[in-house]
Amino acid sequence: MSYTKKDLITTSNLTKDEIYHFLNLAKEFKALNNSDVKKAKSLYGKTTVNAFFENSTRTRTSFEIAAKRLGADAINFSASQSSAKKGETLLDTINNIVAMKTDIVVLRHYSSGAAKFVAANTDAHVVNAGDGLNEHPSQALLDLLTILEAKGSLENLTVAIIGDIFHSRVARSDIYAMKTLGIQVKLFGPPMMLTGMEAFGCKICKSMQEALEDTDVIIMLRIQLERQDDEVPFPSVREYSNFFGLTKAKMKFAKEGVIIMHPGPINRGVEINSDVADDPRYTHILNQVENGVAVRMAILHTLISNKQG
Amino acid sequence: MSYTKKDLITTSNLTKDEIYHFLNLAKEFKALNNSDVKKAKSLYGKTTVNAFFENSTRTRTSFEIAAKRLGADAINFSASQSSAKKGETLLDTINNIVAMKTDIVVLRHYSSGAAKFVAANTDAHVVNAGDGLNEHPSQALLDLLTILEAKGSLENLTVAIIGDIFHSRVARSDIYAMKTLGIQVKLFGPPMMLTGMEAFGCKICKSMQEALEDTDVIIMLRIQLERQDDEVPFPSVREYSNFFGLTKAKMKFAKEGVIIMHPGPINRGVEINSDVADDPRYTHILNQVENGVAVRMAILHTLISNKQG
Amino acid sequence: MSYTKKDLITTSNLTKDEIYHFLNLAKEFKALNNSDVKKAKSLYGKTTVNAFFENSTRTRTSFEIAAKRLGADAINFSASQSSAKKGETLLDTINNIVAMKTDIVVLRHYSSGAAKFVAANTDAHVVNAGDGLNEHPSQALLDLLTILEAKGSLENLTVAIIGDIFHSRVARSDIYAMKTLGIQVKLFGPPMMLTGMEAFGCKICKSMQEALEDTDVIIMLRIQLERQDDEVPFPSVREYSNFFGLTKAKMKFAKEGVIIMHPGPINRGVEINSDVADDPRYTHILNQVENGVAVRMAILHTLISNKQG
Repeated sequence: MSYTKKDLITTSNLTKDEIYHFLNLAKEFKALNNSDVKKAKSLYGKTTVNAFFENSTRTRTSFEIAAKRLGADAINFSASQSSAKKGETLLDTINNIVAMKTDIVVLRHYSSGAAKFVAANTDAHVVNAGDGLNEHPSQALLDLLTILEAKGSLENLTVAIIGDIFHSRVARSDIYAMKTLGIQVKLFGPPMMLTGMEAFGCKICKSMQEALEDTDVIIMLRIQLERQDDEVPFPSVREYSNFFGLTKAKMKFAKEGVIIMHPGPINRGVEINSDVADDPRYTHILNQVENGVAVRMAILHTLISNKQG
Repeated sequence: MSYTKKDLITTSNLTKDEIYHFLNLAKEFKALNNSDVKKAKSLYGKTTVNAFFENSTRTRTSFEIAAKRLGADAINFSASQSSAKKGETLLDTINNIVAMKTDIVVLRHYSSGAAKFVAANTDAHVVNAGDGLNEHPSQALLDLLTILEAKGSLENLTVAIIGDIFHSRVARSDIYAMKTLGIQVKLFGPPMMLTGMEAFGCKICKSMQEALEDTDVIIMLRIQLERQDDEVPFPSVREYSNFFGLTKAKMKFAKEGVIIMHPGPINRGVEINSDVADDPRYTHILNQVENGVAVRMAILHTLISNKQG
Repeated sequence: MSYTKKDLITTSNLTKDEIYHFLNLAKEFKALNNSDVKKAKSLYGKTTVNAFFENSTRTRTSFEIAAKRLGADAINFSASQSSAKKGETLLDTINNIVAMKTDIVVLRHYSSGAAKFVAANTDAHVVNAGDGLNEHPSQALLDLLTILEAKGSLENLTVAIIGDIFHSRVARSDIYAMKTLGIQVKLFGPPMMLTGMEAFGCKICKSMQEALEDTDVIIMLRIQLERQDDEVPFPSVREYSNFFGLTKAKMKFAKEGVIIMHPGPINRGVEINSDVADDPRYTHILNQVENGVAVRMAILHTLISNKQG
């Protein structure tokens, strides 16, 4: 069965079937992306808008490529916070974009809940491309596709997510989807960056050793220095790296065949050292990037098909 | 008869027939924009450039969507004032763009008269997308299309334009086109913001009541705080809102069936209150946005056809 | 024979045949660009990325138009220096872009050698669109096409390059290609801006008269005030203009039939006066711009063909 909702806002309400729908479709688009002519037609005559209220060249580029490969007219609408200060509400901005008969709005916003709010108040399909500290569902789906390809299955796996969990929308979307699939999730990071995370029902680890032992997949999170604030005191980069950074030395705790992932961009020498980030036995970071385009094509294709079906 | 000029710079020299040409063609493109495959071919193999020397995500997006739906290769060329400071003249910049064999230059510039000057000195088609305080002809055409659809005809109408008329290129383009069509135009706003407007032959109103009474269409202008300067003292936002903002309470002066328009983005609680902006009996603001794309498709299509014809 | 390298990084290793391959192919694309439907198919289903780590609306636009006219999905990835400061290495950024299955990366970077380094470490085709003070090969090819069209041949010519040679990647790429073709190159400019240029085997001129006499092509370089630093003291603009600016008066030293070129944007009254820049007997500046798109189409087309061949 496919996915029939108007929008993709969260992984928290995705069923197992829906997750596999996206992953299976993404595999087809990945094959297309590796062929000589990377072009499909399902969004021909459609208009997608990347409405980004937060800078993100990487995610925007991934969605833009996805839309164009499906034949869409893809528009970038970069609304800095200053344009919001011009006095227009978020919903007015989106309603303006949608009034231009755009079919899909890919929304990145600095406020948690923005995508849900917008989706509930517009007829266009909305894809949450990151809302504040809340969610980033396409990242969770590309993470799952990467794990599925590396491990052959998503059954009986343990995933460790390591770093600043509190500020990570990637972690939240990952956790929701992984829980639905029966994947065990362990969390590790500075205690202040794990605040409230017990509520997600994940195992909170006390050491890097505990996080890495018997783990199939390690997801290292980016330290987003720009997101740090007074509420969550941040140790020095050096101290962070010592305690929470992944290094070849610490990989002695890890299981044979473990894979390492990271949502990027990576801070070499901070949360991850080059001796592991570049080790082909471990690293799946660029696979994630490749799968990102395929997953986003699957999302855009699915939402548009819903409209027509 | 259709429109045979090379450029669209001003509404002041448009004939009634020319205005209706654009409106009728825009209706066809509006139907296309509401169909399943929003794509035409008239600009296939053509290159359009949005040369914006002033920030305007909204208008640029509208022109970009219009060009892409007609099959053009649409390029965004954002030239901030700083690039002009690099030492290149406006005409040199435009001549560079045109030397790349671009067919249409959509120009937004902070200087009044820029579009006319450029059009006179280049072979490419030039569309004025706003020049200083002077004109914004595509906005006038989309306003007229919105009125035509709402009222069924453009005959025997009275339009009130309310707000900072002095700084509004929208007002100027509206007034020129409406005069040609025999539409009565009334103006209301802070006296300092009406300076010199008698010359346009519009009725200057002394009160909101006078502006609203017997009026078929109300156009509220955006207070552009960024355009205020020492020459035209601006009252406080609160005072402005009290005297010149449109509210449900003031609508008691208005006629049955009146419609409200606004070029956007709206400042809720400043020039217009939510209780009227969101009232479906009155508001046509999003219709304007939708019609904007259709009108711009009509403009681009017409200018390109002129070249070939 | 055509060009079979994966990348285009420098003109220093181009053979005469390879240069003519690009020029001849560019002539075909120039004809296409002057036809009614400026569209080819050789990049259909391919993705090109303009990865610009330095602002350059002009060059980026030229490459974007070139890619789109060949049918590519063309993506702009503007990575300001600040994004590099976010902690990601250049190679990581490029590897991310390439993991999205992009076929060609057009790279503009502020560091000399960046394009070569990236090309050696990625499977994608890399086009150097300017790297620091080092090279700008597509500019050299468009200069040569412009000279070829104006003079009918590239044999037995003398070219004078005048201005800030030291900071000019255009000059370096021009000199390499011209040497290969047997073109005599003379250099003139403030002595400090000629430092080390004897090594290129060009004649260093002592006066404007010496630079202009018996010269077939004059290439005036843009004074890039933003590139000046303490190492190379810059005279005042007025003094620079007096000694090194090109004026009608100084053209008395020049040969009949000489042409004037400039990579743009021009600083009127600084390195070149309007009385020569706009004189149709001399100026080929806009021809250069037109040829730029054609040459870039030839480059993109050739590199993609290499991949498939």
